[in-house]
Amino acid sequence: MSNELMVEGRNPVLEALKRNENIDKLYVQEGLKDGPVNQIVSTAKKLGVLTVYVPKDKLDDMSETGKHQGVILNLSAVVYAEVEDILARAQERSESPFIFVLDGIEDPHNLGAIIRSANLAGAHGVIIPKHRSATVNATVAKASAGAVYHTLIAKVTNIAQTIDELKEKGIWFVCADMDGAEMYDVNMKGAIGLVIGNEGNGVSRLVREKCDFTARIPMKGDIDSLNASVAAGILAWEIVRQNRSK
Amino acid sequence: MSNELMVEGRNPVLEALKRNENIDKLYVQEGLKDGPVNQIVSTAKKLGVLTVYVPKDKLDDMSETGKHQGVILNLSAVVYAEVEDILARAQERSESPFIFVLDGIEDPHNLGAIIRSANLAGAHGVIIPKHRSATVNATVAKASAGAVYHTLIAKVTNIAQTIDELKEKGIWFVCADMDGAEMYDVNMKGAIGLVIGNEGNGVSRLVREKCDFTARIPMKGDIDSLNASVAAGILAWEIVRQNRSK
Repeated sequence: MSNELMVEGRNPVLEALKRNENIDKLYVQEGLKDGPVNQIVSTAKKLGVLTVYVPKDKLDDMSETGKHQGVILNLSAVVYAEVEDILARAQERSESPFIFVLDGIEDPHNLGAIIRSANLAGAHGVIIPKHRSATVNATVAKASAGAVYHTLIAKVTNIAQTIDELKEKGIWFVCADMDGAEMYDVNMKGAIGLVIGNEGNGVSRLVREKCDFTARIPMKGDIDSLNASVAAGILAWEIVRQNRSK
Repeated sequence: MSNELMVEGRNPVLEALKRNENIDKLYVQEGLKDGPVNQIVSTAKKLGVLTVYVPKDKLDDMSETGKHQGVILNLSAVVYAEVEDILARAQERSESPFIFVLDGIEDPHNLGAIIRSANLAGAHGVIIPKHRSATVNATVAKASAGAVYHTLIAKVTNIAQTIDELKEKGIWFVCADMDGAEMYDVNMKGAIGLVIGNEGNGVSRLVREKCDFTARIPMKGDIDSLNASVAAGILAWEIVRQNRSK
């Protein structure tokens, strides 16, 4: 955790929460329920900050000062955008929206590499879920080669619902899945959202059901699947290829 | 280094060298020149084992036992193949050779992800250089999702010379480089070697000059380059696309 931006201890955490800038996640020691901790937790709740309860051991491991007093606040390396900002960027560029939707990427190196690819593929933004996903910390920023500072990244509560809202705006969604049609045969031109699933479990059922198409990267070989960031890159550039003027 | 397979201390290192199986690299403490160390170094030299001189501090960091006595031998996670084995595998499958050539990939996660991609793209093998490259240790094996155990990996002394030899056998080489033609416009069908360069510096000049083509992944965006393993995957699947029967 030493790469992340952290605030430790009760007063610092409460003050940082009140400032309410770039907050990523609150870690609270399991079982702690005294007044100051309750105040921190209720402030976080009011602000919609994700609170995760963990054993004291885990906080001790995370802590850089050794003085966490049962609370550690993770700050984000970037200011998150709204989904609307992503659409606005596409409009500014007079382009059809091209959005990456990451349904639960857990590895920070993968998240960074995917944001890097999204930027270079010309996507207008990246959507990640609030829960069960790596968040944009310093490790992700480094793995992205700085792309996190140039790429709109929106964090949403419910990926499936966000997809529904974007479908109403004329965006089609293609889901990366081994059971899909070969990607070369899937029409991914125009306004498109590319949905990449979790490293181990792929795209969740609910999200998969929301997608308009399912695309498969053709594979030979002896093992199961590509690295998630490699798969995302291959699919993204198939979208680039289909959209290029000939 | 705790993930690598290591032998530490003078007697164990000498015995492992004599067994001469899966040897990756010998680390020797700078300045040590006594009899036993000289015997180890000369044995390594006879066997063609790469010997690297490092400060005592570095050996101390690498050491798991704390008793390295100035010598640590790195073992490889796999048995390396010969370039001929890669050609034989293509022939067994009645396919045109498809070979990845990695000109100095330094990051073990990248190397692992690229070997994973090579396997799934249906390549017949991966060629890496003996010097200035990550070697196939346990970290690479893990990042490859086990693909290192199914993929022929040859380690050669001189990449440029190996390319020359393979060109004589009718294999064409395409080099990934930002100054090349757009990859969709480069004919990469048939017997092909895909050359991927170092993360920071790209393909070295000498190797680039040996290549028949240079292919560029079209990029927009605000940063310089893709992650090396993502770039390798995108180019590999462009080769897959061009070779598929329509």
